[in-house]
Amino acid sequence: MNDRNIPLLCDYYEYTMANGFIENNLKDQIVYFDIFFRNVPDNGGFAIAAGLEQLIDYISTLRFTDSDVEFLRSKKIFSEEFLQYLEDFRFTGDVWAVPEGTPVFPGEPIVTIRSTAPEAQILETFALLTLNHQTLIATKASRIVRAAAGRTVLEFGSRRAQGTDAAIMGARAAYIAGCGGTACTVTDKMYGVPASGTMAHSWVQMFDSEYEAFKAFIELYPTNATLLVDTYDTLNSGIPNAIKAFKEVLLPKGYTKCAIRLDSGDFAFLTKQARKMLDEAGLKDCGIVVSNALDEWLIKDLLDQGADINAFGVGDNLITSHSCPVFGGVYKLVAIEKDGQIIPKIKISENVEKITTPHFKKVYRIYENGKAIADLLCLHDETIDASKPLELFDPKATWKTKTVKDYTLRELMVPVIKNGEVVYDLPCLEDIRSYCSRELDTLWDEIKRFSNPHRYYVDMSHKLWDVRNELINGSRQS
Amino acid sequence: MNDRNIPLLCDYYEYTMANGFIENNLKDQIVYFDIFFRNVPDNGGFAIAAGLEQLIDYISTLRFTDSDVEFLRSKKIFSEEFLQYLEDFRFTGDVWAVPEGTPVFPGEPIVTIRSTAPEAQILETFALLTLNHQTLIATKASRIVRAAAGRTVLEFGSRRAQGTDAAIMGARAAYIAGCGGTACTVTDKMYGVPASGTMAHSWVQMFDSEYEAFKAFIELYPTNATLLVDTYDTLNSGIPNAIKAFKEVLLPKGYTKCAIRLDSGDFAFLTKQARKMLDEAGLKDCGIVVSNALDEWLIKDLLDQGADINAFGVGDNLITSHSCPVFGGVYKLVAIEKDGQIIPKIKISENVEKITTPHFKKVYRIYENGKAIADLLCLHDETIDASKPLELFDPKATWKTKTVKDYTLRELMVPVIKNGEVVYDLPCLEDIRSYCSRELDTLWDEIKRFSNPHRYYVDMSHKLWDVRNELINGSRQS
Repeated sequence: MNDRNIPLLCDYYEYTMANGFIENNLKDQIVYFDIFFRNVPDNGGFAIAAGLEQLIDYISTLRFTDSDVEFLRSKKIFSEEFLQYLEDFRFTGDVWAVPEGTPVFPGEPIVTIRSTAPEAQILETFALLTLNHQTLIATKASRIVRAAAGRTVLEFGSRRAQGTDAAIMGARAAYIAGCGGTACTVTDKMYGVPASGTMAHSWVQMFDSEYEAFKAFIELYPTNATLLVDTYDTLNSGIPNAIKAFKEVLLPKGYTKCAIRLDSGDFAFLTKQARKMLDEAGLKDCGIVVSNALDEWLIKDLLDQGADINAFGVGDNLITSHSCPVFGGVYKLVAIEKDGQIIPKIKISENVEKITTPHFKKVYRIYENGKAIADLLCLHDETIDASKPLELFDPKATWKTKTVKDYTLRELMVPVIKNGEVVYDLPCLEDIRSYCSRELDTLWDEIKRFSNPHRYYVDMSHKLWDVRNELINGSRQS
Repeated sequence: MNDRNIPLLCDYYEYTMANGFIENNLKDQIVYFDIFFRNVPDNGGFAIAAGLEQLIDYISTLRFTDSDVEFLRSKKIFSEEFLQYLEDFRFTGDVWAVPEGTPVFPGEPIVTIRSTAPEAQILETFALLTLNHQTLIATKASRIVRAAAGRTVLEFGSRRAQGTDAAIMGARAAYIAGCGGTACTVTDKMYGVPASGTMAHSWVQMFDSEYEAFKAFIELYPTNATLLVDTYDTLNSGIPNAIKAFKEVLLPKGYTKCAIRLDSGDFAFLTKQARKMLDEAGLKDCGIVVSNALDEWLIKDLLDQGADINAFGVGDNLITSHSCPVFGGVYKLVAIEKDGQIIPKIKISENVEKITTPHFKKVYRIYENGKAIADLLCLHDETIDASKPLELFDPKATWKTKTVKDYTLRELMVPVIKNGEVVYDLPCLEDIRSYCSRELDTLWDEIKRFSNPHRYYVDMSHKLWDVRNELINGSRQS
């Protein structure tokens, strides 16, 4: 869907800079930018990378229309050379990226872009927007799915999403992270995320009685028999009417699969009562779905209290990542090329944690016994011989070292665009979802904890660490 | 821009219900739905309604493509009659709404829809999505603009927005609420929200020195001379280099308007130092722009501490309404028509605050001496004779009454769609923005306070209160 690839959805300063690079003979200057993040939302142990498919689509199809160029011309600050450049715009560079569904950690590149300076600048806003949003929602959804401990989680948040794209791409990201489906119909059509839904309170209100409403629904949808039981009084009216409708209408048709949905009240208390009532009525196959202000903490608490729940519908807390609605991916210059040489660049900051990791890099994930133990940032041309012991050290506390012997490794970033052409075989959403699930299995539970999770190591090779130190020291002396 | 009017961006249950209404002879059943909200984000005193233009566009242009209908057919639960209904879909009903930019309060309808039941159901998801999102951002932006106390606030959040639509429509909503502009170029092209921007750190890093970078920028953009001074060291390098560039390049060209931008560090300390350095250099016209993790609380604190700031660039805290990223607008059935009579409907809830206000209503805003003192919900056919005293009472505490004598009033909701046709003269964005500003002037400062604001009264007429009570009592007895 290229409708979302809006060429001018771009910070204005990208154009003033791109125009300025062209005016200053930097049109063909090759640059390297990394996209990385500094903090995991909700103080979690990791994030789930998502949004790459849309990023690749954007980069490979970005064109400016005549009206886009005319609009910029009307600003009277851009050169005709630049406006012509936009008219002819094609991305010609290279992109490496971590596949969607990969658990990722602060400080490591998720995407690296090598291109001319104007091209790299023009991509920045949309690249961040796309990755930040979907990674945010995938990360949040992963937490909620983990809290549900094997029970189904359905994404119900479109009406509270921050705009149309947030609803659609949010449902996509949630599915990658393990949600079982969505209420958002178009995400099913576009991406195959299973859409489902039954009734709102208005359905119940439209009939002369709650029972009539339930009966009419089951008669029409015997294979989709989930009844919303809290319009008037859950225990005294909703559940008894649902039981009656199931027994009088559904069972005689030969169906036993059904469910009730509760959308208000205390779910620990109500679901236990509901389960008892359903079981006593012989409806052991009747599931209990709950929805209302759920998030990973409430789901965990409800299950800890023995709530009897088969599925969770999660709305605004998921689709907006309510408790932490921003993923802070940034886009930083890490190197330029000069006379065929790659010159590393660094951004110094008073705030030590904001100092960037320079140079064109690759990332290895190191495994021991099938579990990921650390990621290692290296220079792009370093290779690790996995037959030899590997010394890891903490770049923030270099005296903390660990030597691993029996390990395997894999490179996290893969080439996705080469000379402007897509060279990546885009996986389908089901495959991304399965991959994400398998990747989570490689993480220690200590990393997946909600409260104060263990910090996963993102280390640097000795060579990279030396480059970084030289640049920091060089900057201090100048 | 109709690209965002995605017909299937709709909760799946809207279709199961709409199909069910048709199957149950409720295809032509006239219903009334209200959109209202229960809580103001951030515990504020009011919200700013926004998103109506997009809602009207959506309702009046909603059509289903063949491929949409084919997709639903593939689900094998919808009747051919319903699928044909979607193929021929045109909204045929009526819509009343509060104009964009109006301060609105919990419990009062912002939009009322009168249509057939299937039509009303099909609109629900998108209507809520659009109004919830833009109202959220306008409300947050209004707080930030108020905190800035007359200084310019620029919306800088695209890269952290929750998707493309969030960036564009968020920038639109922020402008309604008083922001001076945006970084998001396409929002300028689409809606005329002034886009601006100068440089990122990468611009500075691309040159051999900070001074070279500043000089090159000013030479190219003497009328847009805002220099980012924190790439290396704000006080020891950035500001001295900026001063040098202004004096050596800008002033000789005859320009005096310029600014520095700080994107890190403590702004209370740094801006006072910066102001002193600039003044001592004779650059009294040089402005100071700050950006980094700003919101209404930090802006207020900085100004309380005497920070010397001319403009604020606000990113993710505005574009996501970070501290409260959800506006909880809901869509509730309030009446149906039977034999030409309007029958009020109510949704009872264990939670008293969730009981709906039934019936087809209108809303008056009551003014004394030019200040709004209360909103009054009435039955649709009630009129108030403003020449007579008016008794207001608190619907939650009916013994609290107030009689006003010298007052004016106006109806808040206006007809926007009649029999499916747009009957509303859509104001341009500048006019919405001016209207919003004037409307804010009618609110007492006590309502506008951030901490524990005074609760504005949303009262009911005696007739409406009686209808509501009868329905509540009737429901308890049945």
